[in-house]
Amino acid sequence: MKLTAAELDADLTALAKALFADIEKQTKDGPGVTRPSYGEAETRALKALETAAQSHGIDCHYDRAANLWFELPNSPSGPATVIGSHLDSVPQGGNFDGLAGVIAGLLVLLHLKQTGVVPFTPIKVLALRGEESAWFGKAYMGSLALIGKLSATDLELEHRETGQTLGSAMADLGIPIDEIKAGKPLMDLTAMGAYLELHIEQGPTMVARRWPVSPVTGIRGNMRHNRIVCKGETGHSGAVPRWLRKDAVLAVAELLSRLDEHWRVLQQMGMDLVMTCGIVSTNPVSHAVSVIPGEVSFSFEVRSQNEQTLEQFYQLMRNECEHISQSRGVTFDFDRQLFTQPAVMDADWLKRLTQACEVYGFETENMPSGAGHDAAVFANSGIPSGMLFIRNEHGSHNPHEAMEIDDFMLGVNVLTQALVNGSLNESSDA
Amino acid sequence: MKLTAAELDADLTALAKALFADIEKQTKDGPGVTRPSYGEAETRALKALETAAQSHGIDCHYDRAANLWFELPNSPSGPATVIGSHLDSVPQGGNFDGLAGVIAGLLVLLHLKQTGVVPFTPIKVLALRGEESAWFGKAYMGSLALIGKLSATDLELEHRETGQTLGSAMADLGIPIDEIKAGKPLMDLTAMGAYLELHIEQGPTMVARRWPVSPVTGIRGNMRHNRIVCKGETGHSGAVPRWLRKDAVLAVAELLSRLDEHWRVLQQMGMDLVMTCGIVSTNPVSHAVSVIPGEVSFSFEVRSQNEQTLEQFYQLMRNECEHISQSRGVTFDFDRQLFTQPAVMDADWLKRLTQACEVYGFETENMPSGAGHDAAVFANSGIPSGMLFIRNEHGSHNPHEAMEIDDFMLGVNVLTQALVNGSLNESSDA
Repeated sequence: MKLTAAELDADLTALAKALFADIEKQTKDGPGVTRPSYGEAETRALKALETAAQSHGIDCHYDRAANLWFELPNSPSGPATVIGSHLDSVPQGGNFDGLAGVIAGLLVLLHLKQTGVVPFTPIKVLALRGEESAWFGKAYMGSLALIGKLSATDLELEHRETGQTLGSAMADLGIPIDEIKAGKPLMDLTAMGAYLELHIEQGPTMVARRWPVSPVTGIRGNMRHNRIVCKGETGHSGAVPRWLRKDAVLAVAELLSRLDEHWRVLQQMGMDLVMTCGIVSTNPVSHAVSVIPGEVSFSFEVRSQNEQTLEQFYQLMRNECEHISQSRGVTFDFDRQLFTQPAVMDADWLKRLTQACEVYGFETENMPSGAGHDAAVFANSGIPSGMLFIRNEHGSHNPHEAMEIDDFMLGVNVLTQALVNGSLNESSDA
Repeated sequence: MKLTAAELDADLTALAKALFADIEKQTKDGPGVTRPSYGEAETRALKALETAAQSHGIDCHYDRAANLWFELPNSPSGPATVIGSHLDSVPQGGNFDGLAGVIAGLLVLLHLKQTGVVPFTPIKVLALRGEESAWFGKAYMGSLALIGKLSATDLELEHRETGQTLGSAMADLGIPIDEIKAGKPLMDLTAMGAYLELHIEQGPTMVARRWPVSPVTGIRGNMRHNRIVCKGETGHSGAVPRWLRKDAVLAVAELLSRLDEHWRVLQQMGMDLVMTCGIVSTNPVSHAVSVIPGEVSFSFEVRSQNEQTLEQFYQLMRNECEHISQSRGVTFDFDRQLFTQPAVMDADWLKRLTQACEVYGFETENMPSGAGHDAAVFANSGIPSGMLFIRNEHGSHNPHEAMEIDDFMLGVNVLTQALVNGSLNESSDA
């Protein structure tokens, strides 16, 4: 018996609420939820979804990296569009980060099953393990294992609480770590025609802009230094005149102010860019109110969807340091530069998701993802990828995540629409 | 038998070297010297000078604050010009900070005795105790006790090592602390017609400018906050766009850069001013490379010889904080404002010292004292005061103070010249 659209929507909403509530209950840890990567609570969340999916007539199986896959029975063969996200969480995290994307995938399958609508590619849903870096100091372990990019060194990383190595934790789940060490992909990547991920927004933009749902244009990469040390010369704060000072604090203040101004201008000129100096400190052993500061250490991070922008802004920072070294008689010492590659979302999928939003009557603008996602791993390994953000208050990685179920269901409908309406309408002036 | 000028100079130089060496030996403490305020090593230094002075026919007596006075026998009565400095040191300090000024006074007395030259006022020499704030957290105790400005609260301050109160340490030396508590001066201030202090420079200016000796125009006061807290809002460093950020580090960087630029311009316009932010730190409990910094604490200090400049620059700082609060959505919380009054050196004594430098064939420019001195206490209590700096490398308050004996002796001669040649030559275009 076929349900009306309103009945189907009500059914799926009720199921979504029940699944969120069940998994929250099963992984509750004080005010938040805790689902450690490759840990027991993560497994519990996988089992809960497996049970629920099977009871709704969805086929389930685990891949060789112990991730869980869902699909409708008798699905067509050929490269599938995979809807995925992760089930682990940070310690004392929120219930929606990751889990929302997997539940969205299951609802899409049930929607297709109920309506009998046939999408333009086969659809599979993927519940990944091990996305959060909080546990082993490494992110995207589940997706990296699938594409053969998790290294032997990574497998030696230790769990922050138990001290168990990542390799040992994976082996306990039956994952073939010798193949991982050899760099072999644990799945046939040609079976993956596309990767789509629905995720809560982890910043405040959509709340501020009143966008319930937004396609994501790209995932920002970053260049970082955890510790840059600016060295000047200490001296008596009253007795050393301006022309003989080598004040490390004023040198770093000038550097940051100049970079802040460049950021403002470059963003105005259309570049995607955010810059953060999260840590600054004079030397706590020797600093004093009446001593000219001779040493300041600070961190530097620039993020962008565009790799060239990252490199250019990084070089701009280095150039400013040289300029300030010369004008102020200070030096800058840099620790190892860290780099995370940005990922561009597939243009066709961005267009499909944007058009699906228009079907539901709302427009969106350029929305980058500032945080990283498994979608970046798949995109950078050549699989066309797309992401859809759901409005969410209070950021993520804390128990105060606040996603409204109505926004979530709108996201599920947009996702379904994008899968069904596969053809891309060219703009009239093309 | 009268010595030639060269013989006298050689004699006094040898005596100066011997006195510096003797007191250094008696108060040596590892690489530096340690002469705690109102402590045993300070007393030892006083006794050593007393013995040496008496052996050279100089009369000595202690005042009611346990400071030591020196004068030639049968000195005329009437308000005296007092040449003074202090004998205490910081822990592991240098031998010249303070001691040089007292030895200079003794050499001036011996010079007058040997040459029979009569200065235009009576001359006395004062070896003060308790100038360094390192021991009880309070500076200028010896001079403040003399003028009745050491408070009952000050007397309760505890010694950094022994825990003994300042009042108890003073009482042990027979100082009437009840009279100090009552605010009574411990000497007749009308007997002090002027106060002159020779001191090593504690900054690098004279070495850089190649000035062996320089009169001091004034002693900088300061306005301070030990801790200002700038509060913004933490957030994900990748996910929060520029327009929604409240970055406390960039706010403080802008504040310091603006003040640095104002300082540059105001100094160029002739104002005496130095500004220092000696302590800066993001919150070590919660800061991270990838978190927008929500809190920065920092210190602020401005120093000037001019009280109006201090107040105006302080207000400028507050105005900039208000401006930045509005533009960046941050707040600034200020702890108690601390104020130390600047002291202007007496114009006539500055002129006499400058003219004495000219007699020895070198010119000087505007030279403020950035550090505080007992001269500031006397000047601000209405006693015309003057200071003479001696070139010194490596600053002070450390064992590496490096004053050349030739520079010191030149200072002694300049001081003597200024005392003898009392008349002020008006400039020709007056």
